[in-house]
Amino acid sequence: MTDCIIDFEPVGRRGKCRKKESLLACARQLGVGISSICGGEGICHSCKVQVISGTVSKPTPNELETFSRREIKGGWRLACQTYPASDCKVAVPAESMTTPQRLQVEGLEVKVRPGSPLRAYRLQLAAPSLEAPQADADRLLKALNEQHKLRCTKIDIGALRTISDQLRSWKWKGQAVVRNDEVIAILPPKSRQLGLAIDLGTTKVAGYLVDLRDGRTLAAKGIMNPQISYGEDIISRITTVVHSPDNATALQKLAVDAINELSADLCAEAGAKPEEILEAVVVGNTAMHHLFLRLPVKQLVLSPFVPAVSQALEVRAGELGLNITPGAYVHLLPNIAGFVGADHVSMLLATDAWQAKETTVALDIGTNTEVSLIYKGKIAATSCASGPAFEGGHIKYGMRAATGAIERLRIDGDKIQYQTIAGAPPVGICGSGILDALAQLYVAEIIDEGGRIIDNQPRVRAYKGQREFILVSKEERKGKPAITITQHDIRELQLAKAAIRTGIQALLETNGCVEDDIKQVIIAGAFGTYIDVSSAVAIGMLPPLPLNRFRQVGNAAGMGAKLALISLKSRAKAQAVASRVSYIELGSTPSFQLTFIQASYLGRYRIIDGKREEID
Amino acid sequence: MTDCIIDFEPVGRRGKCRKKESLLACARQLGVGISSICGGEGICHSCKVQVISGTVSKPTPNELETFSRREIKGGWRLACQTYPASDCKVAVPAESMTTPQRLQVEGLEVKVRPGSPLRAYRLQLAAPSLEAPQADADRLLKALNEQHKLRCTKIDIGALRTISDQLRSWKWKGQAVVRNDEVIAILPPKSRQLGLAIDLGTTKVAGYLVDLRDGRTLAAKGIMNPQISYGEDIISRITTVVHSPDNATALQKLAVDAINELSADLCAEAGAKPEEILEAVVVGNTAMHHLFLRLPVKQLVLSPFVPAVSQALEVRAGELGLNITPGAYVHLLPNIAGFVGADHVSMLLATDAWQAKETTVALDIGTNTEVSLIYKGKIAATSCASGPAFEGGHIKYGMRAATGAIERLRIDGDKIQYQTIAGAPPVGICGSGILDALAQLYVAEIIDEGGRIIDNQPRVRAYKGQREFILVSKEERKGKPAITITQHDIRELQLAKAAIRTGIQALLETNGCVEDDIKQVIIAGAFGTYIDVSSAVAIGMLPPLPLNRFRQVGNAAGMGAKLALISLKSRAKAQAVASRVSYIELGSTPSFQLTFIQASYLGRYRIIDGKREEID
Repeated sequence: MTDCIIDFEPVGRRGKCRKKESLLACARQLGVGISSICGGEGICHSCKVQVISGTVSKPTPNELETFSRREIKGGWRLACQTYPASDCKVAVPAESMTTPQRLQVEGLEVKVRPGSPLRAYRLQLAAPSLEAPQADADRLLKALNEQHKLRCTKIDIGALRTISDQLRSWKWKGQAVVRNDEVIAILPPKSRQLGLAIDLGTTKVAGYLVDLRDGRTLAAKGIMNPQISYGEDIISRITTVVHSPDNATALQKLAVDAINELSADLCAEAGAKPEEILEAVVVGNTAMHHLFLRLPVKQLVLSPFVPAVSQALEVRAGELGLNITPGAYVHLLPNIAGFVGADHVSMLLATDAWQAKETTVALDIGTNTEVSLIYKGKIAATSCASGPAFEGGHIKYGMRAATGAIERLRIDGDKIQYQTIAGAPPVGICGSGILDALAQLYVAEIIDEGGRIIDNQPRVRAYKGQREFILVSKEERKGKPAITITQHDIRELQLAKAAIRTGIQALLETNGCVEDDIKQVIIAGAFGTYIDVSSAVAIGMLPPLPLNRFRQVGNAAGMGAKLALISLKSRAKAQAVASRVSYIELGSTPSFQLTFIQASYLGRYRIIDGKREEID
Repeated sequence: MTDCIIDFEPVGRRGKCRKKESLLACARQLGVGISSICGGEGICHSCKVQVISGTVSKPTPNELETFSRREIKGGWRLACQTYPASDCKVAVPAESMTTPQRLQVEGLEVKVRPGSPLRAYRLQLAAPSLEAPQADADRLLKALNEQHKLRCTKIDIGALRTISDQLRSWKWKGQAVVRNDEVIAILPPKSRQLGLAIDLGTTKVAGYLVDLRDGRTLAAKGIMNPQISYGEDIISRITTVVHSPDNATALQKLAVDAINELSADLCAEAGAKPEEILEAVVVGNTAMHHLFLRLPVKQLVLSPFVPAVSQALEVRAGELGLNITPGAYVHLLPNIAGFVGADHVSMLLATDAWQAKETTVALDIGTNTEVSLIYKGKIAATSCASGPAFEGGHIKYGMRAATGAIERLRIDGDKIQYQTIAGAPPVGICGSGILDALAQLYVAEIIDEGGRIIDNQPRVRAYKGQREFILVSKEERKGKPAITITQHDIRELQLAKAAIRTGIQALLETNGCVEDDIKQVIIAGAFGTYIDVSSAVAIGMLPPLPLNRFRQVGNAAGMGAKLALISLKSRAKAQAVASRVSYIELGSTPSFQLTFIQASYLGRYRIIDGKREEID
């Protein structure tokens, strides 16, 4: 039997499992931190994993005792007792991980005046009697309208399901939370009004627990999007659903479960209860938005790539299965196009880029990169398939931003200086490290401007038919395989960075601008936060502008979700932004192909009319 | 081992199973028509039943082959192969019954001008293109509003989930079904607009499939309420929920499943699809209403017996799990009080009793009997716990109105003449037969006005310590046990009929009327339809008025549901009726106890100020 390739999810690390090596040993070899207190003796049961696909050894009696029959069927195993017999995909649950991944949730804080759609009113009701046996809900509505001069006509069915016990246990006192003409929740006399803002990314889910009255963020957290088990990028997730529609339900459930897990964690941190959450705002790209709501997705990937719905939506928490107050509404910001979603709208809102007075480019770099150009009061947006390279995908030693990932890198003559996440021994390279590596290899003239690795360099070797550059040698890793950047990796990175630059170019061209016109470049998203902008400029991913024109704003989509959560005005702005954006389909722009070819070169240059012009 | 008592549900027949007798043999003995094509050889598998409680013999290899392991766990067995080892409750599914039970769905047809809250608009959209890549929903709303001068702002999430495939497969044509400012469904260019009216009774569920445009009933059907497995009356079902709140979910699911089954059958009959059903109206007593919506029920049975909600409600079909178009609303007519529900409102609406010019009593007789008095433009209502006797409960040979039930009875000297349902050999007595029996025994002076069976009558015998009257002898039944009316049965019937009469009396007294003032008595409900009114007057259940003042109107609650389904005006009327009714708690009326005692006597009499006055 030959070696098997094991794919560890959601950490996104893939590598060989040698003969007679357990999943645990393989994970260690690859730097995936699976907990193993007993050292692999099958005693502590802390290395639980789920085999998603592939063939593995039969469960041991020990495992048969540890797991239920249903769990065994579902692929649950102890990593230390399990030996792969084919290539496998293995999910490592959060509780089996030794170190949490770095998931960015921070972003700039924009101040808005809180003005949520909710208002809470104090209630004091008379207890019913045989003489006045009015129904609980009717009694409440009458008192509410009389005492507060309102015209509420209905109470959410979820609130009705607890009204009778609650009013009695609170001795006919409480608060009614009103949204438009409806009571959506009944709360005890003293209670908070909390909201949940979610940035539902393809790879990561960020959540914020917010006090709706003053807009304060009480807790923030990020987790991996468990939908990754159905595909790393949105195209593969959509394909899954198109092939078997039942997967739509499964993918929705994964997203809902993730948000529920996140909100439970946030509540625990803030000492709150999920039922105190009275409103939620969710943003995501159009595909994530549709998968979360179980909307049709097939037409998203077929020309002309239209969403099922673009306008803002409001759906009951109960309809979606969110464990917050059942009458709560989930507000979804509007989408722009099939590949420019509500997360981009949210970013434009949070950064105020949409009303920038000077020419501005705002981009959110990810597997799919969305770019907007704000020019003379108009907004044009496009989307470029930048691929997973900057998230570590399709890169030999690529990995997500987890412990041991090389995140910064410098080539200094023969020496390589690098920094890893958490200072751990290096196990792979994450996005910002990959970008640095490319820039440094180019600057050090180890690769040429076409991206070819130049031979006869001390750290370049030929390995299995292709050249590769050794970042960390076998000796430096004490016998573990060298961490390298291969010729193939560089080609992948060139495609990714060319896509982003082409997107920026297309917007400039269709608006009759040139790169020098850009006075501000706003870079959002986790990857965008951690990159060294000078590296991005050095390889030609971003235009050669003075560095002080670049602004790295962190998770602006999440910040926009928070704004929309606490402010109706922000929601109205988001809708206005979305309807003002004109979408440009990248592939249909005239000089697309020419620009893309030019943009795949390395180095600092301008592109004018699809032609590259070197600068210093 | 002694004999076991077997309770067959939902037919409601209970009796002994002798040693070494199978469930099938026992069912036959008791006249429960379980299908058995092979004659009990375990071959045809047509006698499938579900053992709900109690111990039975182990499954035979034959049964282990017939049923899945899950079914075996769930108590599924072949009646011919199963031998009880203790008292058991056994559910006989509809498909295993030889003859359907008689479930009344007919009622008077009141004409109203159709005017449902829905309106369908034709659509013709332009297909999207790269130049005009607007989202499907946004495109639809824009065209709808422009082409029909509307101001729709939203589309139901359920409709959105199918919009993209549908618009494409219908070549961008279709119909939008609009309710207020919302599109609740998108239909193909040619399709019907159907509605579903449901009378959700404690024992029976009646359903009507209606064309919303012209109000025609396309199909009508009744089935048993499967909640019976949790208790025959509402008090026991509520107790179940109070003791274990999870049962609320189970009871709701049973009601929803029953309605789904009913609507599937109705659609099959009318050649329609459940997703063509765009609106539903459900009526039931307050407890059924609350159990169906999973609203709190504990306070219904504790003084002062208040509903969680009385006003009319609208809930999405999807929220409740109804298999009709997911954006459809289920409208629930308003309740009046804890024990006077929407079904009574619906009856008052359908019979027009609520606006009767002359003094009118309207009553719906069941386990719980609701009575209204309409007097000088005012409506007063009360509720009396008449118990299950008239539905065959707590009566030795009582049964529901199924094949073989004695439904009419006459005592002519020594001879007993009777009529059974479907002309089958007698197996028990249903409500109308029980009422006749009581009246005939009293008229024939076999029982006295106190209800005591008088001795030394040829058909009276002492049996196991109590007197009983033989209706059908052992000889007449060819060796099967005699069908009798026991002294205990008569006591049960006296309590039931006294409760009803007391209810009528209480309303008269609190409004300062006497019985002679009543110009019209409207009797609704299945039992009320089949009874011989003269028998009811003869035993003093109803006041001694000329027979032409009585009107038996059938399932008026179901009719009211149909009116509300097709007409917004009828819904407004229902809300007006409910808010105009003043509820009187029977137990709190001054002469309640005295009246109740007087009312328990047999014979034709008036009650004035709690005193009984014999008449001819």
